[in-house]
Amino acid sequence: MSPQRPFSTTVRIGDVARAAGVSVGTVSKALNGTGSLREETRRHVRETAERLGFVADARARGLVAGRTYTVGFLTTDSFGRFMLPILMGAEDALSVGQIAVILADTRDDHAREQHLLRSLRSRRVDGLIVTGRTTDARDPLDVDIPVVHAFAPSNDDSAPAVLTDEAGAARLVVEHLLAIGRRRILHVTGPERHRSSRVRAEEVRRVAGEALVGEPMFGAWSEEWGLRAIDLALASGLEFDAVCAGSDQIARGVLDRLRERGLSVPADVAVTGVDNWDVMALAARPALTTADLCLAEIGRRSGEMLLDLVEGRELSEQRVVVPPRLEVRGSTV
Amino acid sequence: MSPQRPFSTTVRIGDVARAAGVSVGTVSKALNGTGSLREETRRHVRETAERLGFVADARARGLVAGRTYTVGFLTTDSFGRFMLPILMGAEDALSVGQIAVILADTRDDHAREQHLLRSLRSRRVDGLIVTGRTTDARDPLDVDIPVVHAFAPSNDDSAPAVLTDEAGAARLVVEHLLAIGRRRILHVTGPERHRSSRVRAEEVRRVAGEALVGEPMFGAWSEEWGLRAIDLALASGLEFDAVCAGSDQIARGVLDRLRERGLSVPADVAVTGVDNWDVMALAARPALTTADLCLAEIGRRSGEMLLDLVEGRELSEQRVVVPPRLEVRGSTV
Repeated sequence: MSPQRPFSTTVRIGDVARAAGVSVGTVSKALNGTGSLREETRRHVRETAERLGFVADARARGLVAGRTYTVGFLTTDSFGRFMLPILMGAEDALSVGQIAVILADTRDDHAREQHLLRSLRSRRVDGLIVTGRTTDARDPLDVDIPVVHAFAPSNDDSAPAVLTDEAGAARLVVEHLLAIGRRRILHVTGPERHRSSRVRAEEVRRVAGEALVGEPMFGAWSEEWGLRAIDLALASGLEFDAVCAGSDQIARGVLDRLRERGLSVPADVAVTGVDNWDVMALAARPALTTADLCLAEIGRRSGEMLLDLVEGRELSEQRVVVPPRLEVRGSTV
Repeated sequence: MSPQRPFSTTVRIGDVARAAGVSVGTVSKALNGTGSLREETRRHVRETAERLGFVADARARGLVAGRTYTVGFLTTDSFGRFMLPILMGAEDALSVGQIAVILADTRDDHAREQHLLRSLRSRRVDGLIVTGRTTDARDPLDVDIPVVHAFAPSNDDSAPAVLTDEAGAARLVVEHLLAIGRRRILHVTGPERHRSSRVRAEEVRRVAGEALVGEPMFGAWSEEWGLRAIDLALASGLEFDAVCAGSDQIARGVLDRLRERGLSVPADVAVTGVDNWDVMALAARPALTTADLCLAEIGRRSGEMLLDLVEGRELSEQRVVVPPRLEVRGSTV
């Protein structure tokens, strides 16, 4: 914590000017890339500033530009599994514009969300990325700065958004199961109250057609439900050569119970998941074929879209849908 | 994105003064809680400000106080499992002081860390919380603002830090295994190059004494290593009535392989983990007894310590160690 280079704030622009033997105005022009200076002078000033450890004040830049070069990343996702890759993708895109991300975690609490929004506004953030755990649509935010919805959509269809393709993820895995010759597909998924479950189940039904065995089995996003669903399916005499699971966690339970019941994967039954959550998909035995929702890409596109809005550029699309990607592993081939 | 209440920035202090029928100075006093005003006036001004959706500018507050009311949260942990609870705990503590957290994810890249540090300093953050995935000590940061190390310690023993008790976690689970009558304890843990593995193994050896079976088995922080370690132990004829695993992921593999080898948990073998990672510990069969490192508490204490440093208060302790907590579940009782 001693005031040392290279990150000292005690070095002022005047110190740089003195050391470089130029005026303060010349230092300012050299560091901001403005005005007309000889390239040699510009380089000399920059090297001097670097040597002294001079750090320009980003707040001053903000006051000049009428911006703070900060954005809020508002999430309802306390658990964080979906949030983190989105956040990292967004940070990647925003850091190109030297924009800092302030994290605001509402923890599913409306009052807390209102408080955080006020706080972000009082800091004059340039914009907001709003995300959350589920793809159920949320009410739009009542703010007067640019907002991009990432992953979790807004009720307002015209709101700028970068979304996942729920149906596309289901289509990818079912088409893969059909392509490897499976004709009796069981669908085990999350709670019916979640839009994800409903949209995916509908697409599974549409793409699988007569290859769908029984009705989609709605339950929970858990390994435990995967275990139990297999018990239920076998007890009711269903015959199947594939299980299309609504998430990697469900698929993990499905795989474990199939093995315990003496069924071989993928020889007897092929299994697919959705998410490509490494902890689940890679530790599964065999490793899991799954649809990757490309969350980091959703984050990156959201960051780029917000940059466009903040800088007043026209959006080429208001709503971007990032297509999922199939990851083929031992559970199907 | 229309400029609407309640988060408009287009409402100015003069608008509030006019609407309330008072001077700008009175509005300022009323909203900042300064000066002497009749309680009735103060309330009237506040209600008017609220009604109009007036939002004070936090940057102005910062310029007056010589602070920005922002801190950086610097992490090397791209994966995020350890980082998130620490971050949430820190945010909880810092939000009390109305302090915003700017996330800086170095992704284990030294050049990126230097760049992010410059960027945070140019924003004049009031302080930094530094964290990371492992408890291996890191080089101190070369900055002239307050820094608190959370979870991942600094090489500099005098640096303010809130740390976990690695040995304490091992002690908790081994004492529990001894208390339930286990006398042949196998220790399966992570790579020997990690401080966590070495410190915990040493404490297991010390506390278990003659109850330790064979040597600690160093490997990887994965389920796969848990599976393989049991195969190795059984193949070499080791007899054991308990497995003390170095993490919940390892314990999960241990549990699965014990079941597959026909051993009953906890009747034949009791199993413990470390982390209390819900995804692993609760989905384990049976649910896993484990040491919770209380990461959110580490984050909270780090936030409080940084607040003390930023506000110039004397620290009662430079180094706080948060004791782990035993979570007893079906894998031992």
